[in-house]
Amino acid sequence: MSNDLKQRIMSRVQEDVIAIEAALRKNLDAHLPIVSDVAGHILFSGGKRLRPLLMVLSARLCGYDGGREIFFSTIFEYLHTATLLHDDLVDGAGLRRGRAAAHSVWGNEVAVLVGDFLLARSLTIASETGMTDVIKVIAGITENMSQGEIHQLTRKKNLDLTEAEYLEIIRRKTAVLMEGACRVGALISGAAKDRASALGAYGYHLGIAFQMADDLLDYTADTAVLGKAVGADLREGKLTLPVIRALSAAGERDRETMARIITDENFSVDDFNTLVRLLVSLGGIEDTKAEAEFHVTAAKTALSIFADSSDRSTLEDIADYALSRKH
Amino acid sequence: MSNDLKQRIMSRVQEDVIAIEAALRKNLDAHLPIVSDVAGHILFSGGKRLRPLLMVLSARLCGYDGGREIFFSTIFEYLHTATLLHDDLVDGAGLRRGRAAAHSVWGNEVAVLVGDFLLARSLTIASETGMTDVIKVIAGITENMSQGEIHQLTRKKNLDLTEAEYLEIIRRKTAVLMEGACRVGALISGAAKDRASALGAYGYHLGIAFQMADDLLDYTADTAVLGKAVGADLREGKLTLPVIRALSAAGERDRETMARIITDENFSVDDFNTLVRLLVSLGGIEDTKAEAEFHVTAAKTALSIFADSSDRSTLEDIADYALSRKH
Repeated sequence: MSNDLKQRIMSRVQEDVIAIEAALRKNLDAHLPIVSDVAGHILFSGGKRLRPLLMVLSARLCGYDGGREIFFSTIFEYLHTATLLHDDLVDGAGLRRGRAAAHSVWGNEVAVLVGDFLLARSLTIASETGMTDVIKVIAGITENMSQGEIHQLTRKKNLDLTEAEYLEIIRRKTAVLMEGACRVGALISGAAKDRASALGAYGYHLGIAFQMADDLLDYTADTAVLGKAVGADLREGKLTLPVIRALSAAGERDRETMARIITDENFSVDDFNTLVRLLVSLGGIEDTKAEAEFHVTAAKTALSIFADSSDRSTLEDIADYALSRKH
Repeated sequence: MSNDLKQRIMSRVQEDVIAIEAALRKNLDAHLPIVSDVAGHILFSGGKRLRPLLMVLSARLCGYDGGREIFFSTIFEYLHTATLLHDDLVDGAGLRRGRAAAHSVWGNEVAVLVGDFLLARSLTIASETGMTDVIKVIAGITENMSQGEIHQLTRKKNLDLTEAEYLEIIRRKTAVLMEGACRVGALISGAAKDRASALGAYGYHLGIAFQMADDLLDYTADTAVLGKAVGADLREGKLTLPVIRALSAAGERDRETMARIITDENFSVDDFNTLVRLLVSLGGIEDTKAEAEFHVTAAKTALSIFADSSDRSTLEDIADYALSRKH
């Protein structure tokens, strides 16, 4: 069913994705070839363009007919890519979408500065909307994302991380950007407040479900399909919901085993497999799936104030796909 | 005369500086204590608040009476501080204003993310102006600064760096921010175009003079007064105007001596002193002073369309101070 869903979404958004790709190249507007190279390395490495699509679909659902939705949608891919460049540095990640991360090819300095450049490009394009409310959304996204990353960093390998803290971190890190993309789609359409709020709620729940699915994949996918190393979160000391739920259900002995593996930076493949077995047997995997499903449903429900349409149904499919995807 | 000048400026701007300091604390609005700590470490380490002051004085010169100039002026200190956090990482600098650089205390990750947070705060405050023209200025500053830094990075230790390239780099890295601060002062006042352009020109020339003076100090100051290591530019492979001019005047033998020292990452104190002697004897120091003086005069001349006033005279004094300062 996952493949059917993907095909259906792709057939509906294919034209938009092609237009978004072209706009991403056109709007980059760098003065130095190295900036285009570094930005291009990560921008054109097979991203799904989910965030620009969310903005485009949201705008259409609100009846936008200004003709600039593809142009404006690049805001969210540039912003997303900027944070990837800064986060890869933070994560010390060696692989991103199956390619060497930019910082390991060009160095930390260039990766950070090209990230700044992309952030600034997204802002320049946002200013073209002529709406300071749009700017406020962009600024809020960046404030949240940086603080979410820092929060996660400061709680590395900390077994006391609560579920509430985890939710706060993924809200800031992931959900706020999708929420913002949907909300800006409504804003540029001059949509009524309840419609902007509904789309914001859709984006928020989609983002939470998307991140939970991502956190699951880190324990259940394999490296070739995922395009980055499985177990990367654990290696970086990031505690995610599968682990938090399993820890809370664990008896003393299982908890000790888990604690040993989580705090050991050089855990072995056997250790990792032991941990995954515990996440399964203690319900961490199932619980996380259930939570993600809850947010998928909430996302779709938020759209119920809109009349049936092809755009609404595509957004619903995207919510379902968040959970069924393999990478 | 330098001390008199400094005293005169300080006595005129003291109240504003105190108000700016308070606003910088109030507007920070971080959710995590570590963000306040890191941002505070660099924000409250004795900065001169030159950029916010430029905006405040420019606004007043244009008759601004909206009462929010101090609030808006924090945009430029947050932006400046964000770039310091990212540039210190880039420069690998160990000292900043006589204190350990943030990245060497909290790590690269946190320094980058707090930089992002400050950038976002400056943007949120800019959005409060309700003017997308202001946002465009902020976005343009960030596009320019990141590309200026990258340009400099890619030309490290390259003896072929031309004077035109050097000017392009310092324009993007330093002058565009001061130009932007002055221009925004005019924009929020609803000033006529010629006044905004005049203040922009003032800020641009001030920025160029300021950076040239900075580049001179790297060869002529001593570490204790400067608050960072003398010769740091050279150690990082940055070729600045004193070196470019000296190289172009040098005979074959002096050029070889200079090339050896410039390309040697571990040059000795003797090497450094030899280089400084050559910069003096070949006219690199004097030429750079003369160029900086030219831009100081151009900055002051740009203000001639404004009637005499205390604010105009403070801006003129600041231009003179750019060149006479010791750190």
